[in-house]
Amino acid sequence: MKAIVHVTLKNGVLDPQGKAIEHALDGLGFDGVGEVRQGKVIELELDASDRDAARTQVTDMCEKLLANTVIEDYSIDFTD
Amino acid sequence: MKAIVHVTLKNGVLDPQGKAIEHALDGLGFDGVGEVRQGKVIELELDASDRDAARTQVTDMCEKLLANTVIEDYSIDFTD
Repeated sequence: MKAIVHVTLKNGVLDPQGKAIEHALDGLGFDGVGEVRQGKVIELELDASDRDAARTQVTDMCEKLLANTVIEDYSIDFTD
Repeated sequence: MKAIVHVTLKNGVLDPQGKAIEHALDGLGFDGVGEVRQGKVIELELDASDRDAARTQVTDMCEKLLANTVIEDYSIDFTD
């Protein structure tokens, strides 16, 4: 099973990478682009077969390592 | 409309960040974790209302700025 974790900055937290992309797109002549935010996506191959157990495990990974929960939100999806 | 762009390393391209996460998870005692890959997710607010036109525009952004197509793949999704 594969877990896909999205880690994004919480609303209100400054995102300099997103701002840099926004300005670069503007410089390249792309119109109509509003706010840009950049986050991370982490794909994990898991041996687990039980999805509920896997969700508990991956949530634990997010809390301990993958996300800084002071400034970041995370979401977890699974594919087989 | 919001465009969500996933940028991931192509298969076979070395991913040191993913490897670092893999080792850190192992060090924290998480079992059954196979390969870990890390990518980027970029969320763009767009003024466009036509999804086909937006897809063309965002594809152009990916080719010119958001992804290094030599070593990275990208995929584009939309939410309203």
